[in-house]
Amino acid sequence: MSGNTFGVLFKVTTFGESHGKALGAVIDGCPPNLDLGEADIQAELYRRKPGAHKASTSRKEEDRVEILSGVFEGKTTGTPIALLIHNTDADSRDYEQLRDVFRPGQGDFTYLKKYGIRDHRGGGRASGRETAARVAAGSIARKLLAREGIEVVGCTVELGGIAIERYSRTDIAGNRLLCPDPGAAKRMEQKLEEARGGGDSLGGIVEVRVTGCPAGLGEPVFDKIDADLAKALMSIGTVKGVEIGAGFEAARMKGSECNDPIGPGGFKTNHAGGTLAGIATGQEMIIRAACKPIPSIDLEQETVDVQGNPQKISIRGRHDACVIPRVIPVCEAMVCLVIADHLLRQRTIR
Amino acid sequence: MSGNTFGVLFKVTTFGESHGKALGAVIDGCPPNLDLGEADIQAELYRRKPGAHKASTSRKEEDRVEILSGVFEGKTTGTPIALLIHNTDADSRDYEQLRDVFRPGQGDFTYLKKYGIRDHRGGGRASGRETAARVAAGSIARKLLAREGIEVVGCTVELGGIAIERYSRTDIAGNRLLCPDPGAAKRMEQKLEEARGGGDSLGGIVEVRVTGCPAGLGEPVFDKIDADLAKALMSIGTVKGVEIGAGFEAARMKGSECNDPIGPGGFKTNHAGGTLAGIATGQEMIIRAACKPIPSIDLEQETVDVQGNPQKISIRGRHDACVIPRVIPVCEAMVCLVIADHLLRQRTIR
Amino acid sequence: MSGNTFGVLFKVTTFGESHGKALGAVIDGCPPNLDLGEADIQAELYRRKPGAHKASTSRKEEDRVEILSGVFEGKTTGTPIALLIHNTDADSRDYEQLRDVFRPGQGDFTYLKKYGIRDHRGGGRASGRETAARVAAGSIARKLLAREGIEVVGCTVELGGIAIERYSRTDIAGNRLLCPDPGAAKRMEQKLEEARGGGDSLGGIVEVRVTGCPAGLGEPVFDKIDADLAKALMSIGTVKGVEIGAGFEAARMKGSECNDPIGPGGFKTNHAGGTLAGIATGQEMIIRAACKPIPSIDLEQETVDVQGNPQKISIRGRHDACVIPRVIPVCEAMVCLVIADHLLRQRTIR
Amino acid sequence: MSGNTFGVLFKVTTFGESHGKALGAVIDGCPPNLDLGEADIQAELYRRKPGAHKASTSRKEEDRVEILSGVFEGKTTGTPIALLIHNTDADSRDYEQLRDVFRPGQGDFTYLKKYGIRDHRGGGRASGRETAARVAAGSIARKLLAREGIEVVGCTVELGGIAIERYSRTDIAGNRLLCPDPGAAKRMEQKLEEARGGGDSLGGIVEVRVTGCPAGLGEPVFDKIDADLAKALMSIGTVKGVEIGAGFEAARMKGSECNDPIGPGGFKTNHAGGTLAGIATGQEMIIRAACKPIPSIDLEQETVDVQGNPQKISIRGRHDACVIPRVIPVCEAMVCLVIADHLLRQRTIR
Repeated sequence: MSGNTFGVLFKVTTFGESHGKALGAVIDGCPPNLDLGEADIQAELYRRKPGAHKASTSRKEEDRVEILSGVFEGKTTGTPIALLIHNTDADSRDYEQLRDVFRPGQGDFTYLKKYGIRDHRGGGRASGRETAARVAAGSIARKLLAREGIEVVGCTVELGGIAIERYSRTDIAGNRLLCPDPGAAKRMEQKLEEARGGGDSLGGIVEVRVTGCPAGLGEPVFDKIDADLAKALMSIGTVKGVEIGAGFEAARMKGSECNDPIGPGGFKTNHAGGTLAGIATGQEMIIRAACKPIPSIDLEQETVDVQGNPQKISIRGRHDACVIPRVIPVCEAMVCLVIADHLLRQRTIR
Repeated sequence: MSGNTFGVLFKVTTFGESHGKALGAVIDGCPPNLDLGEADIQAELYRRKPGAHKASTSRKEEDRVEILSGVFEGKTTGTPIALLIHNTDADSRDYEQLRDVFRPGQGDFTYLKKYGIRDHRGGGRASGRETAARVAAGSIARKLLAREGIEVVGCTVELGGIAIERYSRTDIAGNRLLCPDPGAAKRMEQKLEEARGGGDSLGGIVEVRVTGCPAGLGEPVFDKIDADLAKALMSIGTVKGVEIGAGFEAARMKGSECNDPIGPGGFKTNHAGGTLAGIATGQEMIIRAACKPIPSIDLEQETVDVQGNPQKISIRGRHDACVIPRVIPVCEAMVCLVIADHLLRQRTIR
Repeated sequence: MSGNTFGVLFKVTTFGESHGKALGAVIDGCPPNLDLGEADIQAELYRRKPGAHKASTSRKEEDRVEILSGVFEGKTTGTPIALLIHNTDADSRDYEQLRDVFRPGQGDFTYLKKYGIRDHRGGGRASGRETAARVAAGSIARKLLAREGIEVVGCTVELGGIAIERYSRTDIAGNRLLCPDPGAAKRMEQKLEEARGGGDSLGGIVEVRVTGCPAGLGEPVFDKIDADLAKALMSIGTVKGVEIGAGFEAARMKGSECNDPIGPGGFKTNHAGGTLAGIATGQEMIIRAACKPIPSIDLEQETVDVQGNPQKISIRGRHDACVIPRVIPVCEAMVCLVIADHLLRQRTIR
Repeated sequence: MSGNTFGVLFKVTTFGESHGKALGAVIDGCPPNLDLGEADIQAELYRRKPGAHKASTSRKEEDRVEILSGVFEGKTTGTPIALLIHNTDADSRDYEQLRDVFRPGQGDFTYLKKYGIRDHRGGGRASGRETAARVAAGSIARKLLAREGIEVVGCTVELGGIAIERYSRTDIAGNRLLCPDPGAAKRMEQKLEEARGGGDSLGGIVEVRVTGCPAGLGEPVFDKIDADLAKALMSIGTVKGVEIGAGFEAARMKGSECNDPIGPGGFKTNHAGGTLAGIATGQEMIIRAACKPIPSIDLEQETVDVQGNPQKISIRGRHDACVIPRVIPVCEAMVCLVIADHLLRQRTIR
């Protein structure tokens, strides 16, 4: 039990169910005297909202974050920062029919097995809605990183099997899918439309890059920075794989190809993805997370109820057809939390 | 600092450098009354030794583990179990030439950046030799798991770009590479021989399967069992990517393909790899780790010394050409530690 | 940083300042299927309220706790339980004059030294008000303990130098000071009245007893149950000393007097206070906490402002003259948290 | 389980039983580039040895510490420092008669209740011998503190009911009992002789003072520096009470007496003992620990065996008659560990 805290020094504890009263996070260990207001956090929350890419007149009423503690006259005080996001739009009646049925690909079955009880409304704690608290907490880590000149940017590098062919950082913000290859973005959108039309869903791959990360961060042998990044991303419900730098491709390279030569000006390539022996090299850090297709689909699926009787189920509703792009700020948030934690850990060395 | 402890309840702390006096591990939290002797641990250590696959007359003199505490009359007592492995064969003179040069693909540069000092002999703490302590600790976790009917078996599923075409569990032990496809094993050996002949090295992919794992293990939302497995494997120096179940392939599937249907007899497929929402489903757990090629190669590489002057370097010696198969028991050990830890964590729920 | 979480398995994180928006706690690791409602928590909160002993018509408007998560249909679900207590009565204008002055005996000076910034309103995070979150969290631990037949009861054993002469458990609830000796209680009240009249304050000693605690709880060598109890109580701002069983008096005994003989029916005395070698014996556990006098007094005191200039200060207002009896439920709460945590830790042994 | 690690950033894990192969400690988180050799540690170990006060020709053969890792060319490297102390003099035959009998005042009964198995030889893990590992680890913390100008000095302030009447720091080293009042020291020695002659034992009180501790150390609200000190000292088997500053006496003071006035030159008194609201004030830190009499006495005592049959027992042998002075370096070591840990924790704030 008690697996809802992340980090050693920049420590985040989250709580909340999809259809409970509220979601939230307590950040303990944020350094004092950091400028912080609700607007800083709100900006990140908007990025993970449903429909955030469309006309956004309605969004301001929802997912409002409230800072309850730890900030005084616009600055952090070093005491715990509690963030609250009320669930305003939670109509749990929709879920009554799912009280006794296990949705395929969801945590319904495992939560019941683990705890012997479950809040079935909207997936309860296993809902993707839980990640709002991560994004809120991550936005504070992001402010800390910004003060140190560290930037964390995520994007879509593959969706529905369509991979990018080029990486243009400036193009990321130019399309709804946050894709660094505008041409690929169009094909991805089309593929997404087809899946949506067929009542199905798609998966994809998110890449997060960290620039400005100082060499030295990371705590061997177990709390290597890549190990903590892997945990951080794999702890997002939708993620089934994580890789750093060349990643799985490294397994197909020779040593002479994979090793990054070093010159007087620094590393000449970056197959390592910015980490060697679990410690940041100072190069750009590159992490990719494979996201499975959203399990809630209109198509009929086989399952059982809690008594073990066969059932047919189709999850009708306004589901997204892909976690991308909404999962991108979540991935970024988790990366921000890891880097902020290691930034503080490294301060103890001198 | 202080990143050398792994686990929450089944807690392992390791220590030791490649050419220091000894390596070791302290296991705190192992339940009492578990049968344990040095032979149990030794058997696993033999599996990761250099040349373990060849005639093994010489091996008994080396990597001898000693239990210093926590075991009384052949049973664990619940107190910390300290394990010691003396470094007998450590001739550090070989490394004097590397005192001031950063080997590409190794931790030489980052350790110095982080700590401002480094033990250059054989890679110091960043050496693969560190994993002997993991294997020793993991062997105790394995005994605990065995008592609960849980088994952890690793194998080679890809090497030098050659992937297996079939998975035959009984064939794993039948070849040196622990490959479940004997035909592929032969092609892998050939590829390995070529690389070795050319003074180069290869990477590969290890798969670990856990059978008998009870449903319910895993602690959302951050200490999900897949998140902890990802961290565990990514904390091995050579690993650049980790995936669970369908993994990166899931990113290319549709929801209707990826979801595992449930019938009265249980799940009908296992794309999830034995975990849903971060909790074990009770199915076989399937994890893969991508290993980069060994960075120590005979071929000349560009680098710099600590003053930043360009240098050419070639690491001559008796290096393996691939971490596979020696890394397999290391991967298994880390998986054993995660499962044992979550087994104990789940006991607190009732 | 990050010192606001208590416990290893039954884990509590608190937040909130005296005059901020709210106080609260997140309990992570509470077992599922425990009956829990806001009324359970509210009952304990009433006990620590100012004036709780007097006619209590007004109290229902204040210190209302809200359960935000982790409880479904009246039962805990195993997910984090977030508790919120809004600060309704916080008029921070009263404190403007204290913005730049350090009150003697308070955390004003040290918080500024530590963080370089402080929320001066009502003591901020250092206010005794923080303990409301502890009491709220402790009330959940108490419910868990009750299910196992464990009871935690605190009382006043000394106040203003007046010590009890007898211990009658049934008399504790019969007087405002929760004193097990009604005669002593009267003399304490009189002494308290004198101090209040003189604008001064008094200290006292609280004793907490745990009955029904099973033998075996406690984790040597550092997380001994008495060590964790000592930390738990000493973490309350007002506490300056903690002792177990015979405590400081044990230092004046001979071995032949202090050792508790064991007979077929169990221990014959209890100088140990229910713990041997850091593990519960199964006897009654007895812990005492020495509380200093409340530092806020009407009498004029010497101090300095943030510039170091001498100042005279007297803290006028409706301050209590002693933390007793309000601190008693706080002490009980901390003891409940320790016992609950060790109860869960012991479950991992079998 | 797993209660053998102490500290958050300066982290110590100890292991070993009284009559096992060895005792030891792993220190993870010690900053790099600290001068360290075995002689530094050995010097502290000598202070807790039996008969350390007498002619010491024999002592050099025993309790030899060996540094196994984490130190390179006389400096710490930032990697875990493993310390080993072999048990050379352990003749476990003496203890065969105690295999099935519970010694009063010892952990025999509780260890068996907790774990269902115990190493009966010399108390096993519950032996005072375990503290050798604490002293070894503490000596490294002490070196770190010395580099920052922080000094930790313990002494005897009460023994067998005889309290000091004056505190002369320079006199501490002048007598075997490390007593700051030479006159009291003589009376204590006499009392000790009487107890020893009668086959009995005595308790006493140790005081530890920390000078040079910078203001700001300590992590409210749970990891207050006094809370961590209380835990640290109470985790020593013999300690039954801990107090800071005025301690239990504070409970008998008025607010106007207990508050420390502040002047332009700093605090004018130090009833607080160097901590306010859980954070160091920069004044001298003063902590006292009450030690019970050693339970092993020649006098006959009542007990039972593991079957519950009544037994008479007298522990003949060369036992000390009081843990003082040998426990003093243990108390100092625990205080050093706490201060070192908080020193590192404070570094994360800026």
